Amino acid sequence: MKIIFAPDSFKGSIRSPEVCEILLRAFQEKLPGAEFCCIPLADGGEGTVAAVLAARPGELREATVHDPLGRPISAQYAFFPESGQAVLEMASASGLELLSAAERNPLLTSTYGSGELIRAAITAGAKDIIMGIGGSATVDGGAGLVQALGAKLLDASGQDLPPGGGMLEHLASVAAGELPALCRGISIKVACDVTNPLLGATGAAAVFGPQKGASPAMVRSLENGLRRWSEKVSAAGLADTSDQPGDGAAGGVGFTLRAFLGGQMCSGARLIADLVGLPGHLQQADWIITGEGCTDEQTCYGKLPAIVAELAAAQGVPCILLSGAVKGSQTLLRQKFTAVFSSLSETGSLEAALSRARENLYDRALAVASLLAPRQV
Amino acid sequence: MKIIFAPDSFKGSIRSPEVCEILLRAFQEKLPGAEFCCIPLADGGEGTVAAVLAARPGELREATVHDPLGRPISAQYAFFPESGQAVLEMASASGLELLSAAERNPLLTSTYGSGELIRAAITAGAKDIIMGIGGSATVDGGAGLVQALGAKLLDASGQDLPPGGGMLEHLASVAAGELPALCRGISIKVACDVTNPLLGATGAAAVFGPQKGASPAMVRSLENGLRRWSEKVSAAGLADTSDQPGDGAAGGVGFTLRAFLGGQMCSGARLIADLVGLPGHLQQADWIITGEGCTDEQTCYGKLPAIVAELAAAQGVPCILLSGAVKGSQTLLRQKFTAVFSSLSETGSLEAALSRARENLYDRALAVASLLAPRQV
Repeated sequence: MKIIFAPDSFKGSIRSPEVCEILLRAFQEKLPGAEFCCIPLADGGEGTVAAVLAARPGELREATVHDPLGRPISAQYAFFPESGQAVLEMASASGLELLSAAERNPLLTSTYGSGELIRAAITAGAKDIIMGIGGSATVDGGAGLVQALGAKLLDASGQDLPPGGGMLEHLASVAAGELPALCRGISIKVACDVTNPLLGATGAAAVFGPQKGASPAMVRSLENGLRRWSEKVSAAGLADTSDQPGDGAAGGVGFTLRAFLGGQMCSGARLIADLVGLPGHLQQADWIITGEGCTDEQTCYGKLPAIVAELAAAQGVPCILLSGAVKGSQTLLRQKFTAVFSSLSETGSLEAALSRARENLYDRALAVASLLAPRQV
Repeated sequence: MKIIFAPDSFKGSIRSPEVCEILLRAFQEKLPGAEFCCIPLADGGEGTVAAVLAARPGELREATVHDPLGRPISAQYAFFPESGQAVLEMASASGLELLSAAERNPLLTSTYGSGELIRAAITAGAKDIIMGIGGSATVDGGAGLVQALGAKLLDASGQDLPPGGGMLEHLASVAAGELPALCRGISIKVACDVTNPLLGATGAAAVFGPQKGASPAMVRSLENGLRRWSEKVSAAGLADTSDQPGDGAAGGVGFTLRAFLGGQMCSGARLIADLVGLPGHLQQADWIITGEGCTDEQTCYGKLPAIVAELAAAQGVPCILLSGAVKGSQTLLRQKFTAVFSSLSETGSLEAALSRARENLYDRALAVASLLAPRQV
């Protein structure tokens, strides 16, 4: 019997490699004769680089870049010299987790470091860049990112536009500058699981601003800035006509990667699943176990466990969902997953559940594994 | 494949027959070709009579008795004329659920109705009585019960002792009266899952009084009454020497059934499991599913699911525990059960979980059933 573990991270509690370790420990105890395959996954946010490098031989490269508030930090990416492929995580350069709660202010935070990270990969020889854009701290529309790649953004006095989403309102002109020369021949795929537009009620400022520390007044300022940014990019002849689904991803980085670099928006989960070779592993599998911190019916609409289930279904492999919690109706989930389990055992608060997350996952994994053990019937 | 459902009631939410119905509905959906056997269980409290009659052809008899506060009610018992066996539930005559919260006062409540119920069964021809004593509202030491069977309990003025645990302090003398003649040749087994003594810190007043509405002052009065009751019974030459394990059960009814009727204390769960023929059903079974509202490691010490697991293990049948909640460490539980599941899916309060208890149980039962489905491996 061959069993694959292919979970997302349990956000707020357990990263996907450790989820795999816990599942493996439980299943080995109950199914000592089975073959196991750990494929920790990610959806383009934190953990993406680690997931890819865990599955494929490649190099972990470092680059010194500026964090969202301009401080130097070391960011990492995966590089595969033979194929010229690089996998980048925006979170490692411009991530929310790099800031304290008090520092979270999208008027000030910039994606400049993510542009530096792309530049480092290109300089190293990358031709085929996969960029995970989950977990960013920014709503600067990717303005900082393209500045780091050589675009010229000027304010009314002809000075380089300072960093931060709050500065976009003062943008006077945009030019591609050295960016096209630097990025010539580079293909960019953007790992992204949201379809929000750049502007409006479901846009980057309104939806993601508050998660990144914006007050209602700040959201209005960010929205004005993003609109100005979009208009100036259009006026410079850089972007195609209209607001596209996904343009609002990562505080507008979706828009900018598309406009300046021809970035192609892809399902993050699907992209990573392909990168780590999940379809190939499924060919020989009897079961696959996936999961995430909290599942609800939204999971069915393209989130990582649903992508795993779809890949499994394509090869007739039954897929078990084992998540921290499973909220609301399970009717839709049952159409995707052979069996749906939550690791919870007790009533109580989220905090209490998170503090027992590892133990709960292990306990429930043991129970699931027990039922998969071969039986004489 | 044959699968047995043998749960206890989920106390506070779902009675065991409905637990079986929910499990059956889920399993039939996932395992349409399997054979199922519903054996709702009980441990001697509410639901005991229904459980026995669901499993064996017998008669549901009614008797008009006095409830814990002396009001006439109809109580029920199971009667098997051919064998002369009767199964009685103390809860149906003297149960806590017969009272409103404001009426709960063990100084006033009496087991008189339970004595009447025994008398009715004897009058009907019962020789072999199984008496479930869970869920009582009383701490009268069974004084009312034996009065209803003909014993003479007098106060200092020579009057019959009035009902209620609070009156025992005024007990002056005890005599068996007509009780021995009435109960001659009657065998009584007491279905009981507690081992508390009659008196002291782990006795009937201290442990069960508060659950039945006693304040600390009332507990002291009840303790004094039970001590006097024990002394007077001993002085009358009716009871053997010392306080026995189980004497404190049901507010001291354990003591009185032993002293006056030679009642034999038995594991309620074991007794009911035997009565409903669980060992026989297990002979052909591939799986058995049991459960209860809330499991913790105490469950391993003789509670119903543990008894079911032991009977299953004796015949090599894997036993799955599917309870509402599973609290604390599961290490001991895993020694009893092949797999341990809670039906919970979300964090939140007990009240929220109870309001979703049926849906949660159904959801989790579907998931468990999916894993038991035959596979081509």
